[in-house]
Amino acid sequence: MTPTTTIPVTIDDVRSAAEQIRGVAHRTPVLTSGAINELTGAEVFFKCENLQRVGAFKFRGAFNALSRLGDEDRARGVLTFSSGNHAQAVALSARLLGIHAAIVMPRNAPPVKLAATRGYGAEVIEFDPSEESREALAKQLGAERGLTIIPPFDHPHVIAGQGTAALELFEEVGGLDIIAAPCGGGGLLSGTSIATRAIAPGCRIIGVEPELGDDGLRSHRSGELVKIDVPDTIADGARTNSLGELTLAIIRANVDAMMTMPDDALIRAMRLVWERMKIVVEPTACLPIAALLEAGREGKIDTAGKRVGVIVSGGNVDLTKCGDWFR
Amino acid sequence: MTPTTTIPVTIDDVRSAAEQIRGVAHRTPVLTSGAINELTGAEVFFKCENLQRVGAFKFRGAFNALSRLGDEDRARGVLTFSSGNHAQAVALSARLLGIHAAIVMPRNAPPVKLAATRGYGAEVIEFDPSEESREALAKQLGAERGLTIIPPFDHPHVIAGQGTAALELFEEVGGLDIIAAPCGGGGLLSGTSIATRAIAPGCRIIGVEPELGDDGLRSHRSGELVKIDVPDTIADGARTNSLGELTLAIIRANVDAMMTMPDDALIRAMRLVWERMKIVVEPTACLPIAALLEAGREGKIDTAGKRVGVIVSGGNVDLTKCGDWFR
Repeated sequence: MTPTTTIPVTIDDVRSAAEQIRGVAHRTPVLTSGAINELTGAEVFFKCENLQRVGAFKFRGAFNALSRLGDEDRARGVLTFSSGNHAQAVALSARLLGIHAAIVMPRNAPPVKLAATRGYGAEVIEFDPSEESREALAKQLGAERGLTIIPPFDHPHVIAGQGTAALELFEEVGGLDIIAAPCGGGGLLSGTSIATRAIAPGCRIIGVEPELGDDGLRSHRSGELVKIDVPDTIADGARTNSLGELTLAIIRANVDAMMTMPDDALIRAMRLVWERMKIVVEPTACLPIAALLEAGREGKIDTAGKRVGVIVSGGNVDLTKCGDWFR
Repeated sequence: MTPTTTIPVTIDDVRSAAEQIRGVAHRTPVLTSGAINELTGAEVFFKCENLQRVGAFKFRGAFNALSRLGDEDRARGVLTFSSGNHAQAVALSARLLGIHAAIVMPRNAPPVKLAATRGYGAEVIEFDPSEESREALAKQLGAERGLTIIPPFDHPHVIAGQGTAALELFEEVGGLDIIAAPCGGGGLLSGTSIATRAIAPGCRIIGVEPELGDDGLRSHRSGELVKIDVPDTIADGARTNSLGELTLAIIRANVDAMMTMPDDALIRAMRLVWERMKIVVEPTACLPIAALLEAGREGKIDTAGKRVGVIVSGGNVDLTKCGDWFR
């Protein structure tokens, strides 16, 4: 497949995904913070996917994709490759649907993540990342065992599922001037943009990446799928080396601006949110939050007097890292 | 005043406090956690006062007390001594009501706390805790300037205000078999017990203290006001050296059991709540949570099959301590 300007996922797909996940995914709360409104001069609405099942928006897309499989595919099972939130989202969705899930994870993934994924009843297939590519291994395993691969972002049902968070946000708070979401592989940002363009055509859509992983920004600008080395950033949900074919097409068509934030800005934002809002948000979720907070200085997002929506992507953190983050 | 068995605060006072704070204090959410239900075998309802204004239940009592002052007292102003959540609760309540607040704080209090209290517009009076007693200083200042002292717990309006959290919890979730709250000076526990006895007479009421600060347990048992040295514990909201006269009388009359928890159990509970519920709770708030979680091992609270309410007292933490807590 080559990049295309045809958008392969529509608002109808997002609405259909919302029906599909209803009563299974949490309808997460929308929180506000007087402190952050004061700092930004805006009215900011936080769609709290850190309070979603498995602690991240990823459950929406995974459940939407798995629940649409036919009986034969369900009987054979699914496979994915991820060491992060997508792995757990597929594992939980599979368990809820009675489907066997195999998750390819690097042998050096944090033991707590391997254990958590097994805890959801998934089969964890460890591999040595220095010897094998996980994509190649996943393809091979998928072919050998007839498993359906559920990719982490570049899949219409996954994208449509992720768009349901923004759909719920608009249902809850009405019109917005700006909506911002983190961008790794672009699944959340694509889905968010589809919902937003349909519901609030004039709303400015902003995607935010780690400073060291600006492949999305460059792809958005050039229209080509820019590939980079996996970026070194604390935003582990955005440690991706490129957008996908589908997500690039959607982001290019819908997103108004891509920007980047350095890790130190993520830590400042994380600290502010933990301290003032009393919720645990992960570094990746702080990409758009930092963009609002740091904007005043760099003039990147003009938030004054605006109604701003933020998709808070997740809250899965390794608390042993807090000592490094919060000195 | 000597200890008495007459209970000086009634459910009518709590209901009146609820009216008094309506629309000013947040009606905080009640959260549940599948993970904690599984671990305890119970259905646990968390009344999230970490999401209250100033990040703690203290706002309820402080606002109730300040808003009942007559015009002359308001014009002269109020005074309190605290380096914790009560200071900020009085400062914010005073600002909202247009009352001048003076807060006596130790010179060696964390600069962030001094700044936060000033941030609410209060006059901070620093003193050297090695040279002066804060109570004596407060009394002297109160007399000199005609300020009304708002004590942190041993005051009928403060106690009635703190009871509104339990009142809301019962309104929201109905009957409970057990309700548990932390106990420092006993304001929250007293208020909780008054609401509970009136609304759910059969509900077991449990207060939980730091292991090194078991003055409440000993006072509850003996009926005498046991005084201890200020305990060394991470539960900084329970670093009190005794109950008050009023809180002892109420706790003695209403509370079924007092128990204690060591700091390491608080850290385990805190970690579980941050990781699984994605909310920031302070060590003091973890006293009753730890009591539920550690209970299985020590057989202290039989939670199996029970409906349990927990007052999550606050979420104000110094994040620079996370490195020590979560290794």
